[in-house]
Amino acid sequence: MIQVRVRPGIEDKIKGFFPWVYKPEIASVSKKPGKGDWVVVRDAGGHFLGYGYINPETKISVRLLSFQKEEKPSKELIKKRLEEAYSYRKRLYINSNAYRLVHSEGDLLPGLIVDVYDRYVVVEFTTYGMYKMKDWIVSSLVELLNPVGVYEKVNEFAKSVEGFDAEEGVLYGEVPQEVIIWEHDLKYYVNIVKGQKTGFFLDQRKARKLIRDLVEPGDLCLDLFCHTGGFALNMKRKGAKEVIAVDISAPALETGKKNAQLNNLDGIHWVEDNAFDFLRKMHKEGNQFDVVVIDPPSFTKTKASLENALRGYKELCVRGLHVTKRGGYLAIYSCSFHITREHLLQVITEAAKDTKRMVRVIGESTQDLDHPWILQMPNTLYLKGIYLEVL
Amino acid sequence: MIQVRVRPGIEDKIKGFFPWVYKPEIASVSKKPGKGDWVVVRDAGGHFLGYGYINPETKISVRLLSFQKEEKPSKELIKKRLEEAYSYRKRLYINSNAYRLVHSEGDLLPGLIVDVYDRYVVVEFTTYGMYKMKDWIVSSLVELLNPVGVYEKVNEFAKSVEGFDAEEGVLYGEVPQEVIIWEHDLKYYVNIVKGQKTGFFLDQRKARKLIRDLVEPGDLCLDLFCHTGGFALNMKRKGAKEVIAVDISAPALETGKKNAQLNNLDGIHWVEDNAFDFLRKMHKEGNQFDVVVIDPPSFTKTKASLENALRGYKELCVRGLHVTKRGGYLAIYSCSFHITREHLLQVITEAAKDTKRMVRVIGESTQDLDHPWILQMPNTLYLKGIYLEVL
Repeated sequence: MIQVRVRPGIEDKIKGFFPWVYKPEIASVSKKPGKGDWVVVRDAGGHFLGYGYINPETKISVRLLSFQKEEKPSKELIKKRLEEAYSYRKRLYINSNAYRLVHSEGDLLPGLIVDVYDRYVVVEFTTYGMYKMKDWIVSSLVELLNPVGVYEKVNEFAKSVEGFDAEEGVLYGEVPQEVIIWEHDLKYYVNIVKGQKTGFFLDQRKARKLIRDLVEPGDLCLDLFCHTGGFALNMKRKGAKEVIAVDISAPALETGKKNAQLNNLDGIHWVEDNAFDFLRKMHKEGNQFDVVVIDPPSFTKTKASLENALRGYKELCVRGLHVTKRGGYLAIYSCSFHITREHLLQVITEAAKDTKRMVRVIGESTQDLDHPWILQMPNTLYLKGIYLEVL
Repeated sequence: MIQVRVRPGIEDKIKGFFPWVYKPEIASVSKKPGKGDWVVVRDAGGHFLGYGYINPETKISVRLLSFQKEEKPSKELIKKRLEEAYSYRKRLYINSNAYRLVHSEGDLLPGLIVDVYDRYVVVEFTTYGMYKMKDWIVSSLVELLNPVGVYEKVNEFAKSVEGFDAEEGVLYGEVPQEVIIWEHDLKYYVNIVKGQKTGFFLDQRKARKLIRDLVEPGDLCLDLFCHTGGFALNMKRKGAKEVIAVDISAPALETGKKNAQLNNLDGIHWVEDNAFDFLRKMHKEGNQFDVVVIDPPSFTKTKASLENALRGYKELCVRGLHVTKRGGYLAIYSCSFHITREHLLQVITEAAKDTKRMVRVIGESTQDLDHPWILQMPNTLYLKGIYLEVL
């Protein structure tokens, strides 16, 4: 196997289970590696540190799948990792038949996302090295889960950075365009083929439950960036009088409407609009709600655009506070790891001052249990939510 | 009313709803104030900023109860604040008849803690100014809640810092030594008179639920610093095979045992020991558990003792990781605002490296919904919990 030696000092963080080696951290490579080749990583003195795969063309050169000598890279190791991931999820109390089975680094399978929707499996690759193992992964998943079908979604950003060819499509069995899943006492259509991400925001399961707990029968509610209506449906099921659910995507709203029918829920107004524009309009017209949810897509994938993203959040917070009744609740989320919990708190603090709204924090949430994160990589904690009461 | 003018620039944070004025921030006081006197706070130009009470002897001189001109200090304002606090709690879904009614600054009642245990109310004062309003507070609470009894607990630390005379005892009606409360499907004895704090750790309600969700039938569990067994009972109710519950306080364990009986739960071993010592012993003997909870009391009330406290946490983490099975869960909490979430994460990272245990974070928790915190005062978020899976 190709040997990668890291520069002196670098071994320290790898011993602390940091699973990446950056290009400048490499002292030597035993022979010219091919993209996605397996490597053994050693310290300057030649001592074993871990196994991983390499991509000589990217800044993050090596991603580790193991820190243990006896776990030699093989199809068996991949299968073992998938089994470990499955055995962890089986133990969790998530009250749904849809869950994230593999959360990349969080499951020692860097570059791999696997979501399970009832009897269907959706995979997404974000590195060349993992993509190269596609066949192993698919056959292991089939063995492990005995699914009706496996579907590949493509992350275009990763595909271009890592330089692999991938196309969306069925990898095994049959996959319908839409699948019905359940979570707590609600059912949802998941559009695997045309939906955003892998089709459903599994990571917000816990947040949907929290919002439901906060809504009181008779409340007026607003769900901004509603996608297929996860929050809106929970608000309505709890007895909200009216819910306005806003999204710019007509297909997402179509699915949202179908979800409402599926659960026999009336009184959700689905609005196709830019959430910023709609919020501005509500504010201008003096409309106010008991519970407001703002769950925007990632405004920024890079540090460079952070300033803009924060300005966007500031506006959402300011308007959000204006349209929340005194004594009502405002929940705001960030799913970008560039926008941290501290950024969110800072923006909210400023918005509270600007709007002369005193607020208090009643709770916080992170991505749900099936999206574990690696302590050594704070950016694997990407989803943060802050729950405010407006005084 | 006594007028307090703050130095130029200070008005900014008060306009941002920061509810304290420190002694050096005061430019002038219209006349020599008495301890606990009401004051109106103004900026350098004389513009209204808020109302509060003053203690000329303490570093935090003024604590604000209002940022609104029309909310003049009076018994009515106190009553209004208590009503607001109650109306917020009434809306919450907490599934218990025990809750924190007033969380000091979090309820714009700085210096006041009120916990409700079924028909009994426990109050604690942490400032002179609030203590001075004791009669108003008690009579308002009686009016609002119609309780069977109101009991005063004394925070000795606050009492000495703020310089007021307080004694524990019944302030209204009758209060038995012990009260039975319920939370979810469990009942608990709360020893109001002899218990720690106000008798029960209401702030960990959410955490107890999370731990219950993580335990699987047949698990071996360890509850360190168990107090009256909140976590242990939930572990056992979920079907843990055995639970070891450790605390240094014999009376707390006595109540724990009674709690187990009250809920017909066998198989909890109550151990009177120093949790550090017990953990060391378990480690030395090679005992391992499926789920381990470490919920220590505050090791530090001051910044000065932070280093020591962090060393204590490090040891707990290291030993905790050793006694948690691979694939098992370790939960660790800090109830001191000096030991932040970031401190906890740092200590865990080091401990993981030292013990060669890879860990991943599966969740986090903060104090429950009835303990809201003020954005402008990050230290009002005092309780943090990190949930780890040991790989």
